[in-house]
Amino acid sequence: MVDCKLVILGFGSVGQGVANVVAMKKAMISKEYGVDLKVVAAADSSTSAICAEGLDEKLLVSTKKETGKLGNYPEYGSDIVGIDLLDAVDYDILIEATPTNIKTAEPAKSLTLKAFADGKDVVTSNKGHLALFYKEMHEAKEKAGVEFKFEASVGGAMPIINLCQYNLASCGISSIKGILNGTTNYILSRMTSEGTTYENTLKESQQLGIAETDPTQDVEGIDAACKVVILANVLGIDATYSDVEVRGISNITLDAIELAKQEGYYVKLIGEVSKNGLKVSPRLVKQNSPYAIDGTLNLATVTTDLAGDITVIGKGAGSIETASAMISDLISILKLKY
Amino acid sequence: MVDCKLVILGFGSVGQGVANVVAMKKAMISKEYGVDLKVVAAADSSTSAICAEGLDEKLLVSTKKETGKLGNYPEYGSDIVGIDLLDAVDYDILIEATPTNIKTAEPAKSLTLKAFADGKDVVTSNKGHLALFYKEMHEAKEKAGVEFKFEASVGGAMPIINLCQYNLASCGISSIKGILNGTTNYILSRMTSEGTTYENTLKESQQLGIAETDPTQDVEGIDAACKVVILANVLGIDATYSDVEVRGISNITLDAIELAKQEGYYVKLIGEVSKNGLKVSPRLVKQNSPYAIDGTLNLATVTTDLAGDITVIGKGAGSIETASAMISDLISILKLKY
Repeated sequence: MVDCKLVILGFGSVGQGVANVVAMKKAMISKEYGVDLKVVAAADSSTSAICAEGLDEKLLVSTKKETGKLGNYPEYGSDIVGIDLLDAVDYDILIEATPTNIKTAEPAKSLTLKAFADGKDVVTSNKGHLALFYKEMHEAKEKAGVEFKFEASVGGAMPIINLCQYNLASCGISSIKGILNGTTNYILSRMTSEGTTYENTLKESQQLGIAETDPTQDVEGIDAACKVVILANVLGIDATYSDVEVRGISNITLDAIELAKQEGYYVKLIGEVSKNGLKVSPRLVKQNSPYAIDGTLNLATVTTDLAGDITVIGKGAGSIETASAMISDLISILKLKY
Repeated sequence: MVDCKLVILGFGSVGQGVANVVAMKKAMISKEYGVDLKVVAAADSSTSAICAEGLDEKLLVSTKKETGKLGNYPEYGSDIVGIDLLDAVDYDILIEATPTNIKTAEPAKSLTLKAFADGKDVVTSNKGHLALFYKEMHEAKEKAGVEFKFEASVGGAMPIINLCQYNLASCGISSIKGILNGTTNYILSRMTSEGTTYENTLKESQQLGIAETDPTQDVEGIDAACKVVILANVLGIDATYSDVEVRGISNITLDAIELAKQEGYYVKLIGEVSKNGLKVSPRLVKQNSPYAIDGTLNLATVTTDLAGDITVIGKGAGSIETASAMISDLISILKLKY
């Protein structure tokens, strides 16, 4: 039996999900893969908990939930965070779950490059550094000879990155198109089924916690555009955020939705990368098609040279769902290296 | 650069597809993975072509197509086949594409066990040995310490085996349910859209080459049942073919389809493995759902503990499509071992 020492940076919804999933699955992983997972450090933006023998994952989550700070973790609380933490701790894999920052990509970018430079593998849920600096990140990863996995960065639990890189490894892929943002899909679905206006539906979504207080990133298509950039790069296209033509859903009227409905269509926010470029915009999809999914589901169709079209549907967000994608990525590293 | 020497056994639609895909993709595989693929032998049921330096994949296909026998391959034709061929040739990976035999599982079973015993990896499209002897095959594979990949055995190009084993590796899976046979989905879709009887639609499907001259395996649910058994075993359930409750579509009347349609449903042949057992039967699915797919598409929904439901849709058959799944499996072995 070998140990695999994890550091979790970022302890919001996703970081807590990772801690919970490690607690749920470490016995299975030990049995199936002969590797003992140990969370040797976890940090939020200002405090951390550090213990070389391994922290209690459930206690990490309850400490954060109840006191707001990981620094209050009994005995092992600390105020060492960020790059200092990576220098202070002996670890194998960085679980990077800090908030996506689409302006600077920080702190994700610096933390990930630091881990690479130290020869560590990284599993991330972050979109910022991938959407803005995909090429730079991957060059650093190649130079370091480490693994860099980011399934959770697009579509949460919906498998799309590994689908392209692993399951469809024999295929050339000419386009990926899909519903890549759950919040807008929820809003458009509710407008369609309830006949409520955009403003009222957004308000309802915010009350339910589906849309954020500042909904800009979702409703203006910014989140979907980041995902399109990441997918483009997975296909080998050297693109960055500014290459995406983006239109969100805030101007969609109930009239437009009703008209589409009468003609057998729904309005969906579609992200696409193809030979025609990178694009996010509201588009009509046939009612009697897989694209008719409602709620917060995500969907993506991959068009290949050998396998035809492959479509995948799954939950695009959620603490445990997103963490499950990260732990599946982690297991793929264990299989390869341990 | 290392060589990877392939033997292709079975040279019908799938075997020819593999040869074609190797021809199309060997340059890419050489560039991406640093491995030169060489087909050192290929065999149909009575003849073969053997050359340690590597055969010309396109010439293999044209020889078979034009003369009916691989033995007519210029200079390297042979009548050594089956296990004798595996003894006669120095190779690394067996591509096993012989016809599925649901009574004896031969010749797939003996060929695969022979390859394992010789320490060779196997990629298969065959359902027979997996549906009848999954446990025995996997015990032999474990004992030999080799790789055994079979994505193509369920749903052709639709990724479902690796989806469960790789993409969803962190998850517990409680059920898999789906449309696992393209021929019956085509027949039921046409009966629904055209209002034609089962008998006439079957005849049309046979003329189009979608249904076979003897359609029993498809229309009686036998093919779908084999796939359900394989999926059950992938989930860790020790099941064999006789454990499946099977009902096909040959008794489905146009009346039943019309009635369902009026109520907002379609009739589909659904295969399912869950805690309630293994089952193949015609069932109603909502018109406005991903299950409403028509044509020869396949679909599967995987229900997980962490990631919720993941649904995947893809082409369930086809020479190149099925071969693409086999070459993706092959690439996963290259990544692991080369």
